[in-house]
Amino acid sequence: MGEFDLIARYFKRPARRAALGIGDDCALLQPAPGTQLAISCDMLVQGRHFFADVNPRSLGHKALAVNLSDLAACGAKPLAFTLALALPEINEPWLTDFAGGLFELADAHNCELVGGDTTAGPLNICITVFGEVPLVNGRSQALLRSGARAGDDLYVSGTLGDARLALNALQGKLSVPAPILLAARQRLERPSPRVALGQALRGIASAAIDLSDGLMGDLGHILESSQIGATVQVDTLVHSIACYVDSTPAGIQGGIDLSLAQWRTLALAGGDDYELLFTASPSQRAAVAAAAQASQTPVRCVGQIDANPGLRLLDRQGQVLPNQYASFDHFA
Amino acid sequence: MGEFDLIARYFKRPARRAALGIGDDCALLQPAPGTQLAISCDMLVQGRHFFADVNPRSLGHKALAVNLSDLAACGAKPLAFTLALALPEINEPWLTDFAGGLFELADAHNCELVGGDTTAGPLNICITVFGEVPLVNGRSQALLRSGARAGDDLYVSGTLGDARLALNALQGKLSVPAPILLAARQRLERPSPRVALGQALRGIASAAIDLSDGLMGDLGHILESSQIGATVQVDTLVHSIACYVDSTPAGIQGGIDLSLAQWRTLALAGGDDYELLFTASPSQRAAVAAAAQASQTPVRCVGQIDANPGLRLLDRQGQVLPNQYASFDHFA
Repeated sequence: MGEFDLIARYFKRPARRAALGIGDDCALLQPAPGTQLAISCDMLVQGRHFFADVNPRSLGHKALAVNLSDLAACGAKPLAFTLALALPEINEPWLTDFAGGLFELADAHNCELVGGDTTAGPLNICITVFGEVPLVNGRSQALLRSGARAGDDLYVSGTLGDARLALNALQGKLSVPAPILLAARQRLERPSPRVALGQALRGIASAAIDLSDGLMGDLGHILESSQIGATVQVDTLVHSIACYVDSTPAGIQGGIDLSLAQWRTLALAGGDDYELLFTASPSQRAAVAAAAQASQTPVRCVGQIDANPGLRLLDRQGQVLPNQYASFDHFA
Repeated sequence: MGEFDLIARYFKRPARRAALGIGDDCALLQPAPGTQLAISCDMLVQGRHFFADVNPRSLGHKALAVNLSDLAACGAKPLAFTLALALPEINEPWLTDFAGGLFELADAHNCELVGGDTTAGPLNICITVFGEVPLVNGRSQALLRSGARAGDDLYVSGTLGDARLALNALQGKLSVPAPILLAARQRLERPSPRVALGQALRGIASAAIDLSDGLMGDLGHILESSQIGATVQVDTLVHSIACYVDSTPAGIQGGIDLSLAQWRTLALAGGDDYELLFTASPSQRAAVAAAAQASQTPVRCVGQIDANPGLRLLDRQGQVLPNQYASFDHFA
């Protein structure tokens, strides 16, 4: 099977909203009048972002999910994406599953594959995603990293550290009860981008970012872009998927042999969370709660933005914790 | 140096026309009212698309050039691009040169880097490019593969087979005089996307494609999309950069030991040409000539579109040649 048969068999579907989809030199998109186009791009490399033996259905899901998560963080509505795929060989069952996972998530978000490239090479998946952000009176409604103001509340969606918990368990560094591992592994391999929450927060949140490299690093981007500081109540962050697995005892530990300090490390610097971190004025508390409700996404206030630069971590008793959590760096 | 320092040092520049450039979860583009956005995406893999020891400045140029060539084939005006880069290591002189070649071509086309991704991994460059195509009375002015009609003339810009000539020489399969190799290698490593010609052909050409996999395969895409056939005067295609190198004898051979059949193979199936192949009604001959003139791009008529499906190759005497030229397939 050649390149064009491969595309036709696994990836070509009729254009729906795009003016022109797969099959010409370019795809054509016609964004709605009064909108901006939000664009993001993520590349996933075998051995770096996923194991060689990863389930291809999960990989297809995750490759698009991490991109949709960036649209979510901008408050953009997904429209379309391109897929560039380097494959070491043409493995038909693998491609069927990969495309299955990819299109299942794409369809759930009405996000259309409009073009791309396929080539032979070490397994590499590069997706560029396009979303729509409304302009209101000429002003972009995009959620940026740079809008946080002193006095704003700091929020996180969902739970943090689950993906890293699963990774540590899969690497044999940690023993995790089977039902919790199952749930945590789902979070690692099939993250749910917070697309509905991001759109619901337009006009409410002052700044937002998606958590991919760990909260410490990603919050650092908001603080740097907004030129402000923050205080985080660390123990409000320590809230794992383990709490939600029925068959385990209630509470964070869930039969996992980790100290509180280790749970904190997972939450602050685990990485691969794909939750939203955002800020909003205290006057927006009811609106934030309503956005969380409307998007069926749990959200919790975990700290405050303040004018004092830098990041302060406080424990349950209000004591300052040492700030030694490194965020994920692909070249470290 | 970490990921964010790398981006800041080599790739981050202030946004010019983009509403938001590098540095947030998404870039924001605001296409002009009454336009469509043309999108294309190409991935370049070491060992497949370039040698490990390629000049990084040339590689930066070529990675963007092959994408701009797709915009050219649609008649789109370049606007912006994203860059995803997997690097085996952080090599600063290499990055300086790569970024230099990339931005030199980007600036020449007023095309802005608005976002992307960097990661560790086997060298892989994935660029997604965005261009603008006007709508006239609600009708897209994009040049598509599907618009060719029986009776149309078939045109090619520039010269074909030069890149493959250089590749064969560099691989030691062929001896080529130094001045010709220098010129041909320039065509292989630093192709000039025909962006001005593509835009000049809007409203004139009936169909267009860029030649990346060799004329035979790429013409096949036009014939398939337009559901027509073509007759090509093969020897009008045999016209190499060798003809233009001053220090060699005039004419195609230029001191290169190739038979006419081998020259034909280079022109028909060399690949990596990044010229435009397009069709236009005979009533547009003066307009095509004017577009070629305005864009300072040589263009020659090489055949005709006809209703009879399939592709017929004729030699100078009008004899039918066997059609045995395979186009480039990354998985073949």
